[in-house]
Amino acid sequence: MQAVVQAVNPIIADAFALYLKTKNFHWHLSGPHFRDYHLLFDEQAEAILDSIDPLAERIRRIGGTTLRSISHVHQLQTITDNNEAFVKPLDMVKELLSGNRHIARQMREAMELCDAKRDHPTSNLLQEVLDATERRIWFLFEITQQTQ
Amino acid sequence: MQAVVQAVNPIIADAFALYLKTKNFHWHLSGPHFRDYHLLFDEQAEAILDSIDPLAERIRRIGGTTLRSISHVHQLQTITDNNEAFVKPLDMVKELLSGNRHIARQMREAMELCDAKRDHPTSNLLQEVLDATERRIWFLFEITQQTQ
Amino acid sequence: MQAVVQAVNPIIADAFALYLKTKNFHWHLSGPHFRDYHLLFDEQAEAILDSIDPLAERIRRIGGTTLRSISHVHQLQTITDNNEAFVKPLDMVKELLSGNRHIARQMREAMELCDAKRDHPTSNLLQEVLDATERRIWFLFEITQQTQ
Amino acid sequence: MQAVVQAVNPIIADAFALYLKTKNFHWHLSGPHFRDYHLLFDEQAEAILDSIDPLAERIRRIGGTTLRSISHVHQLQTITDNNEAFVKPLDMVKELLSGNRHIARQMREAMELCDAKRDHPTSNLLQEVLDATERRIWFLFEITQQTQ
Amino acid sequence: MQAVVQAVNPIIADAFALYLKTKNFHWHLSGPHFRDYHLLFDEQAEAILDSIDPLAERIRRIGGTTLRSISHVHQLQTITDNNEAFVKPLDMVKELLSGNRHIARQMREAMELCDAKRDHPTSNLLQEVLDATERRIWFLFEITQQTQ
Amino acid sequence: MQAVVQAVNPIIADAFALYLKTKNFHWHLSGPHFRDYHLLFDEQAEAILDSIDPLAERIRRIGGTTLRSISHVHQLQTITDNNEAFVKPLDMVKELLSGNRHIARQMREAMELCDAKRDHPTSNLLQEVLDATERRIWFLFEITQQTQ
Amino acid sequence: MQAVVQAVNPIIADAFALYLKTKNFHWHLSGPHFRDYHLLFDEQAEAILDSIDPLAERIRRIGGTTLRSISHVHQLQTITDNNEAFVKPLDMVKELLSGNRHIARQMREAMELCDAKRDHPTSNLLQEVLDATERRIWFLFEITQQTQ
Amino acid sequence: MQAVVQAVNPIIADAFALYLKTKNFHWHLSGPHFRDYHLLFDEQAEAILDSIDPLAERIRRIGGTTLRSISHVHQLQTITDNNEAFVKPLDMVKELLSGNRHIARQMREAMELCDAKRDHPTSNLLQEVLDATERRIWFLFEITQQTQ
Amino acid sequence: MQAVVQAVNPIIADAFALYLKTKNFHWHLSGPHFRDYHLLFDEQAEAILDSIDPLAERIRRIGGTTLRSISHVHQLQTITDNNEAFVKPLDMVKELLSGNRHIARQMREAMELCDAKRDHPTSNLLQEVLDATERRIWFLFEITQQTQ
Amino acid sequence: MQAVVQAVNPIIADAFALYLKTKNFHWHLSGPHFRDYHLLFDEQAEAILDSIDPLAERIRRIGGTTLRSISHVHQLQTITDNNEAFVKPLDMVKELLSGNRHIARQMREAMELCDAKRDHPTSNLLQEVLDATERRIWFLFEITQQTQ
Amino acid sequence: MQAVVQAVNPIIADAFALYLKTKNFHWHLSGPHFRDYHLLFDEQAEAILDSIDPLAERIRRIGGTTLRSISHVHQLQTITDNNEAFVKPLDMVKELLSGNRHIARQMREAMELCDAKRDHPTSNLLQEVLDATERRIWFLFEITQQTQ
Amino acid sequence: MQAVVQAVNPIIADAFALYLKTKNFHWHLSGPHFRDYHLLFDEQAEAILDSIDPLAERIRRIGGTTLRSISHVHQLQTITDNNEAFVKPLDMVKELLSGNRHIARQMREAMELCDAKRDHPTSNLLQEVLDATERRIWFLFEITQQTQ
Repeated sequence: MQAVVQAVNPIIADAFALYLKTKNFHWHLSGPHFRDYHLLFDEQAEAILDSIDPLAERIRRIGGTTLRSISHVHQLQTITDNNEAFVKPLDMVKELLSGNRHIARQMREAMELCDAKRDHPTSNLLQEVLDATERRIWFLFEITQQTQ
Repeated sequence: MQAVVQAVNPIIADAFALYLKTKNFHWHLSGPHFRDYHLLFDEQAEAILDSIDPLAERIRRIGGTTLRSISHVHQLQTITDNNEAFVKPLDMVKELLSGNRHIARQMREAMELCDAKRDHPTSNLLQEVLDATERRIWFLFEITQQTQ
Repeated sequence: MQAVVQAVNPIIADAFALYLKTKNFHWHLSGPHFRDYHLLFDEQAEAILDSIDPLAERIRRIGGTTLRSISHVHQLQTITDNNEAFVKPLDMVKELLSGNRHIARQMREAMELCDAKRDHPTSNLLQEVLDATERRIWFLFEITQQTQ
Repeated sequence: MQAVVQAVNPIIADAFALYLKTKNFHWHLSGPHFRDYHLLFDEQAEAILDSIDPLAERIRRIGGTTLRSISHVHQLQTITDNNEAFVKPLDMVKELLSGNRHIARQMREAMELCDAKRDHPTSNLLQEVLDATERRIWFLFEITQQTQ
Repeated sequence: MQAVVQAVNPIIADAFALYLKTKNFHWHLSGPHFRDYHLLFDEQAEAILDSIDPLAERIRRIGGTTLRSISHVHQLQTITDNNEAFVKPLDMVKELLSGNRHIARQMREAMELCDAKRDHPTSNLLQEVLDATERRIWFLFEITQQTQ
Repeated sequence: MQAVVQAVNPIIADAFALYLKTKNFHWHLSGPHFRDYHLLFDEQAEAILDSIDPLAERIRRIGGTTLRSISHVHQLQTITDNNEAFVKPLDMVKELLSGNRHIARQMREAMELCDAKRDHPTSNLLQEVLDATERRIWFLFEITQQTQ
Repeated sequence: MQAVVQAVNPIIADAFALYLKTKNFHWHLSGPHFRDYHLLFDEQAEAILDSIDPLAERIRRIGGTTLRSISHVHQLQTITDNNEAFVKPLDMVKELLSGNRHIARQMREAMELCDAKRDHPTSNLLQEVLDATERRIWFLFEITQQTQ
Repeated sequence: MQAVVQAVNPIIADAFALYLKTKNFHWHLSGPHFRDYHLLFDEQAEAILDSIDPLAERIRRIGGTTLRSISHVHQLQTITDNNEAFVKPLDMVKELLSGNRHIARQMREAMELCDAKRDHPTSNLLQEVLDATERRIWFLFEITQQTQ
Repeated sequence: MQAVVQAVNPIIADAFALYLKTKNFHWHLSGPHFRDYHLLFDEQAEAILDSIDPLAERIRRIGGTTLRSISHVHQLQTITDNNEAFVKPLDMVKELLSGNRHIARQMREAMELCDAKRDHPTSNLLQEVLDATERRIWFLFEITQQTQ
Repeated sequence: MQAVVQAVNPIIADAFALYLKTKNFHWHLSGPHFRDYHLLFDEQAEAILDSIDPLAERIRRIGGTTLRSISHVHQLQTITDNNEAFVKPLDMVKELLSGNRHIARQMREAMELCDAKRDHPTSNLLQEVLDATERRIWFLFEITQQTQ
Repeated sequence: MQAVVQAVNPIIADAFALYLKTKNFHWHLSGPHFRDYHLLFDEQAEAILDSIDPLAERIRRIGGTTLRSISHVHQLQTITDNNEAFVKPLDMVKELLSGNRHIARQMREAMELCDAKRDHPTSNLLQEVLDATERRIWFLFEITQQTQ
Repeated sequence: MQAVVQAVNPIIADAFALYLKTKNFHWHLSGPHFRDYHLLFDEQAEAILDSIDPLAERIRRIGGTTLRSISHVHQLQTITDNNEAFVKPLDMVKELLSGNRHIARQMREAMELCDAKRDHPTSNLLQEVLDATERRIWFLFEITQQTQ
């Protein structure tokens, strides 16, 4: 059980970090695509937040403990913060794409571990969260493509 | 304007810190009142989160910038984290009471400032957020009273 | 008809008095069960209030007149007010239990009268209100039991 | 704080008295405008009732105590009861107009006090309640005008 | 059972006749109260129609047969039709008042019969329908009162 | 205008007659398809009823008068009543099919008339009602087909 | 009170037994009417289940105790189980018809007892449950009729 | 196409003018029918506004341009403004009746034109808008009738 | 009737083909407008699909038969498929614009035919579908305009 | 009171003018951002319209009179109309930005006046409307920024 | 397939037994936590019942047969009944905790079997049901902890 | 990844083919079970359509391309079309049963492949779609059974 807990808690921490980064870009965006990306980032931030409570409660159900504070998040997160005063819209999209890809890789590894440990409900939950993450990756990737 | 921004951003940071602390206790609670306090902490965490986006977008409307990352929250927060492995239920209630009182004090000071700067919509928003905070304080305070 | 009117109007007056007493305890409660009983008293107060308009309009349909003012309520009510500054939670529960039992007795007597006078719709309405009152009595009674 | 509590509690008491008077007229109305005024009085009674719980809970949040019983209401109310067997529809409208104007005056005074005491959330709540009261006054006033 | 069937079917027939008369007045109304009474008659017609299917299905549940056609309604109805080209609004109200009082009398008699035959669910259903009918009577009666 | 009124009022009368016939069969049905046809007849009766108020109010908007009573319906209806004690399910379906075809023919004629008189909104309304009628015809027709 | 409790608890036990039998047939049905009866049995099972909690809580309100376990149900039930591997659809309908008629008889007897004991709210609740049961009987009976 | 555009744009302009006149009377009404007409005018204003966007977007779909500003409305409108400080309620009703009749006439002419130009969807939309307009005319006309 | 059937069935086939082409572009889109056009194409695909069942059922109501399979669609469709691996976003918009214009032309011709054959409900349905198609054309056309 | 009325009525007139200008651009937009800005302008127009009725009814509650007609709007409005046949999308955004900034300035001045006159509910309402206006300004401003 | 059926049917039987035991405690609870645990047991009973129909229908989809009667449940259940007249609240919680742990073990074994038999949809359904069961275990376990 | 794409795209193509075949039978059905099967086929067609977008978007998330046109569907589909003018209802059921069994087999094979390739979210999605397919198979199979 402890192995699953140690694999999932950093994912929750990164979800918090990515949530805040996505809100950061939602708040500080500029340019002609403002409304479109402002809505996109809000939907994606909402989707990330929706994954946190189920994952944390799942960890509690298998007897582990989970996140406790901002400093705890900071200590476990593996996604780098971006405190720049100005980020270009396309760079925002690219940075979120990179963050979501990073977290997706961690989920795939945690699923392998859960399956090895025969903790199927956790694995099942991670599959759903991964599917939602891959949806965000798809959207962000296509936006970065130069098409004309 | 800059003075208002500098007064409100730490409140948003503390709201994040208090949100995570309230979720922490929501997740790690024990004892005969489990369901009752588990629900209470979830309602209070939800109410705290609901105040963050309006405050952050308000800061943007008056031309300021707002929070960007977990490390930015960590740098601005004035509420102390609690990473203890076990906290007694009554101590959880007392610590949240103290945290909400702390953030209420900051809101009162920020409202004074807004009124002085004639930024009435921000003041109005803070009044609503303060009213919700004082509601949480009332609930948490009454729970700590020894009555029998 | 006049007999039915004279039997039902004091029930409406007592419903007002019990409604206000239940709100009183909803507002002035303390202790570890705060949220649980605060919600319980609010649900019960709401249920009491919901019985008032149907009973009063029923009296109007059979040609009687019904309550007119706070002083009219005060004159007809048979439930004693409690203006104490502090009441222990368990004493609140016991006092509401006693008030609901009192009003249930009056409803049973009024139903007998309605049946004797062949006013079946009023009797039918009182049966529904009595059933809801007996539900409140059950909840309040079980809470007062010492079980461990 | 005590000054605010002493200013707001009589308003709550008058709201109860006005609620019951409005229901009284809702129940005992006659004449060709029956359905129209019957609905109007019900909407207005509902709106008055909706102001009571927020005001009473607000008093609790600032540490005061609030209403406890019918006799407590009776002692604090400043609106006169009307226990007449028959009131003409237009006189009902005029009496409610006068009652709402009376309570609006008290709210304006209480708001001044709150602002002086820097209790902005209470002031803010009273502004909303006053706005709803002034809406009732407008409706009732226009109905009393002779137009043809 | 047959006695109950013979008592209830004419009530259903009269409900159809009263429904159509109420719609007639809903459609052919004039004068300054047009919107108010137009809505009132529609609400009352709707309420009458809502009683027909439950009563007819109730008759089927106890093994009887119920209404079959317009001519069947015509043969069983005891409410007189009004095919006048013009009816004054107040006369409309009075005629509906008289029709509802007529149907209420029949329901009271049918309830006596059901109780004598120990068919309680039919009696219970009639009590609810009678209560709704008495509500219509109250509204219509008060409108006809000269008050000023 | 008068020509349109004289064409539409018999359609409303037939809608009433067909509504009651469909309810008749809804109530007095038997056999293995009971639930399926019971629901079908109820849906169709509901659809027929829904056409009556718009048609009647349309007649009022163009200055005509419309139906007034059961006897008025009886006088204008062209659909034959069926007061038989027992009707086989398949015969019920066939009789409703015939009734709906009859009323569809009348609607087509009335539409021609409306177009000739340039009363397009009435024609438009009849088109929608006819479309719903043809849907009922389709369902009833297919049920009567011997397929195996 | 004890007499009412002893009359109602077997009805609750039979409701459980009939619920499970109806679900049994809902699950193991075959033949061309599959979807129609599958839905019918599900609606009826749902309606039976909906009667259990109100009846059991009613018994608690009058101070009695109610069902505790599968073995308790088994001991009190008077409806025979059917564990056959295959039941023809029409036989399913007939067996449910017989079961609902059995439980309706018990309800009528319990109602007599409640009225004799002046426990009107229980009687009132049983009337509503009986009405729903007689509706199920009507549906099931008509399906068993040979009509063509 | 241009002919259709030139026929429909003045209708949109008049809809704006009539909307504002109806709101004007909604706001400045007096007298015993205050609530009833206040609601009526609000419903009618809402219904008029609901026709504007579909008509304007329809003009865009057929390649035309539509209204641009208050001055553009003012230039195209054919309904006279009423800036009187006081208008009697009955005169308000009569003036709205006249305004709606005026706009209905324009719609009938525009429909003729659309049919001649074979632009059926625009004609279809105008039919629905005309039907709603004739409903308002019916209500307003009946209110002006002296009936007693 | 046969003529109407032969005119409408190819429209249904083209609606299927256009639905799939719109989904194709919804799925395979790239570039900075990804989210905005992705949503637009989904709304338009949904709107196209919504027109298919009413048109097909309408054909059945007038006694015709309609589409049966993918090969049947393929045989009747007049819109060219696009199986290219990559299409530029602006070319997607232009191709959908062309497809919708093509289908709109067919609808206008079918409406002429329906009117000639006096099948008004089919014509009426086509008017609504055409209006929705012209809305899609407007959106797609404006997107293709070079404006800056 | 008169000073408040004179300050608020021009704001209502400008809200009408800005509403129509925003709809103008909603209707006459072109280019690759068509759907995105079309929706944005519609949301903003809706938000502007939502402020008109509360402001106008507020003026009535304090005893003033408010707008009466298109010509009255035209006379009071301070926002310039734009009747150009073609406006570039970015110029539309800039012009709406300028209009919203203009109206925000007026609201700030009116709030000062209300506070000076101690009309707090009007001031409170203006704060909410100003906050919504500043949200529109933020969106429009960010769209005008050149970011890449 | 037969192995899966034989593994899942006892789980359904135990779900029925645990459902009834949870309702038993929901009905016969006492003490100061009455409302809180009364609601908790109801939520948990509801969650258990919600798992029964999907599991039973899943067994039917793979060609097996499932539960038929109370006696069938009794024969397959492995959870012991508790028919005691009085159970202390904390003992209720402990007994439900033990029952849920027992059923969770069975689900884990059945999932192993399904995976071995490559029946993935059944396994997937069991994972969801197990996750809900582990949630109940977590709640019940934390309540039994002595914390102060 | 490419292997998964090549396994899933033919399933999507068959889903389109089966959707259209199910709608075909929904539209061209006859006989006494018309309404029941008409609804069944519509529910099943809807369920098939609901699986297409998630499967196609899933393929895009893993970097593949998916269906583009009717001809693409036609080329990939493995379900045979049925363009017969008349199909007996029971043959319709049997043919849909066979089509759903065919597509279920393909899903099982694709799931094996996904598991081998460790693409768990796709496998998870296929499990849900397979479960829904097996539900349709169960319904269709039971209908084909001769039971009496």
